[in-house]
Amino acid sequence: MPTPSREIRLASRPHGEPTLDNFSFATVQLPDPQPGELLVRNLCMSVDPYMRGRMNDAKSYVPPFQIGKPLEGSAVGKVILSHDKSIPEGAHVLSMYGWREAFVAPASVLRVVDTALAPPSAWLGILGITGLTAWVGLFRIAALKPGETVFVSGGAGAVGTAVCQFAKMHGCRVLASAGSEDKLEYLRNQLHVDYAFNYRDGDPLEHLKKGAPEGIHVYFDNTGGPQLEAALYALNNHGRVVMCGGISGYNQPVPGPRNLMLTIGKRLRLEGFIVSDYLNEIPAFLAEAIPALKAGKLLNQETIVEGLDAAPAALLDILHSGATNIGKMVIKLTD
Amino acid sequence: MPTPSREIRLASRPHGEPTLDNFSFATVQLPDPQPGELLVRNLCMSVDPYMRGRMNDAKSYVPPFQIGKPLEGSAVGKVILSHDKSIPEGAHVLSMYGWREAFVAPASVLRVVDTALAPPSAWLGILGITGLTAWVGLFRIAALKPGETVFVSGGAGAVGTAVCQFAKMHGCRVLASAGSEDKLEYLRNQLHVDYAFNYRDGDPLEHLKKGAPEGIHVYFDNTGGPQLEAALYALNNHGRVVMCGGISGYNQPVPGPRNLMLTIGKRLRLEGFIVSDYLNEIPAFLAEAIPALKAGKLLNQETIVEGLDAAPAALLDILHSGATNIGKMVIKLTD
Repeated sequence: MPTPSREIRLASRPHGEPTLDNFSFATVQLPDPQPGELLVRNLCMSVDPYMRGRMNDAKSYVPPFQIGKPLEGSAVGKVILSHDKSIPEGAHVLSMYGWREAFVAPASVLRVVDTALAPPSAWLGILGITGLTAWVGLFRIAALKPGETVFVSGGAGAVGTAVCQFAKMHGCRVLASAGSEDKLEYLRNQLHVDYAFNYRDGDPLEHLKKGAPEGIHVYFDNTGGPQLEAALYALNNHGRVVMCGGISGYNQPVPGPRNLMLTIGKRLRLEGFIVSDYLNEIPAFLAEAIPALKAGKLLNQETIVEGLDAAPAALLDILHSGATNIGKMVIKLTD
Repeated sequence: MPTPSREIRLASRPHGEPTLDNFSFATVQLPDPQPGELLVRNLCMSVDPYMRGRMNDAKSYVPPFQIGKPLEGSAVGKVILSHDKSIPEGAHVLSMYGWREAFVAPASVLRVVDTALAPPSAWLGILGITGLTAWVGLFRIAALKPGETVFVSGGAGAVGTAVCQFAKMHGCRVLASAGSEDKLEYLRNQLHVDYAFNYRDGDPLEHLKKGAPEGIHVYFDNTGGPQLEAALYALNNHGRVVMCGGISGYNQPVPGPRNLMLTIGKRLRLEGFIVSDYLNEIPAFLAEAIPALKAGKLLNQETIVEGLDAAPAALLDILHSGATNIGKMVIKLTD
């Protein structure tokens, strides 16, 4: 018996900043699952800045979205019908089949998550790829050590809030930037970062000097642009830059830092990474994150938006430097 | 009995491009060496692009030159008078007391070099800090592997010619850029690089695509600027950039690459280094370089300019993208 599922498709490719016209809605009839397959109803789904890149028709580390086809993204759903004995009905599974109400897929592309440990959306956020991104960037790319000073741009975003928390948990001094008073208050009062500043309020370098008079050891870059340039000035010798995101350039290219040659005299290392290369680190990551979450030392900060219809606007929102979300942007689809 | 020594001093700091007026000449009377000291007469001295940075009054990895004081740089000299039994008279020593005819210094800051293995100037070039810079960049920073493809900008310069040769010796494909037909011919016919191009002749990226249709693995950056941007486009996943020099920005800042965010999707690593951090690698480096030089598999390419008077102009020359030297620029002072 076919199951209807509403989904969001790429209607057209954006030129520069995307608009709601780039998205369309459709309802498909899902076939019954074949042997080895499952029918899953999504409970919540992730909205991530990297999706902007997939809206372009450009070769990258993930294939572009196809016009007329549904978007993709992380989602946690509940198994409605299982034709594979490895995953029972009622289980919660993580998949890349977001941006739709339901789907049929083989068991091999689903990962069961334990919602007794944390609610479904936490498996998209602090325990999911978002948390892993922060953790891998800090500890595998930058090799952050206790006592060092970290600056993270986009500090109130999904990855940024995780970076702040993991760095603090490891005994580091944390500087974070954000674009609104609400976010700065959150960073100061909830995440206890040592110095939070609005990147649009004066020269970022002056803030870095004030917040870290001894210089910084690691810059976790979620933005590119002028904050990257300021960080290169503020980094100490042998400093590391985790190249994680360039939100300032997602919609159009921005000039690179004029001071990149400081990498020579200061022996800096700038390194980009893709979290999907580090899925083998999930056990080590969860071994740290789950106990911390249960102990209340780690927050799963999220901004929840209700309903599939709201998803395109939510994506457009997080692509702005003035994005309203604090922490992970999650679309809640059903209970 | 005092010994006269003519020396070159910093007369004033340059604003932008240096001129001959920034240098002055003076003759000093050297005192007799004290116990533990030696009197050395320089045979040849090195002229290096990094000296431009020391002409500014800016904190960096080496202190700035002082106005009214002699410049410094590598030199090989002959011991005229030794009051230290560790180094006999007649020995050849490497020091940082270049830009002067003679000097008195303690034995502890001198390194004896074997001119039976290679002529004095080779200890400034392929067997000296220049060769070590190329070797450390390729094998310690980029971890270059046989079969990989390397692109080096400033390929006909001092470090560039060493990079081309060490990479070829390790079974790599080499692309090199330079700014004149003479240099390109040298790269093709003497160093046997696989693809040499004039960086001012068309789009560097088109050359990189032509010379390395499968992409490049390592970019050895001696220039910064548009060639760095082109290299970021041409690099394969997990590519490495050795940040060694930024000659395009020595006299004034240049915009950074607009495509730095490619580091994320391609998992690129950009890393700067200072060769003086790697002096402990000298034995490993020489164990490879000396036999290769003796076997004729490694050339000590140099451009020799005669006399102390010619040194300021030689420095101004190598700071230009149209520098005339091929290989190491050496000032010959005396036989």
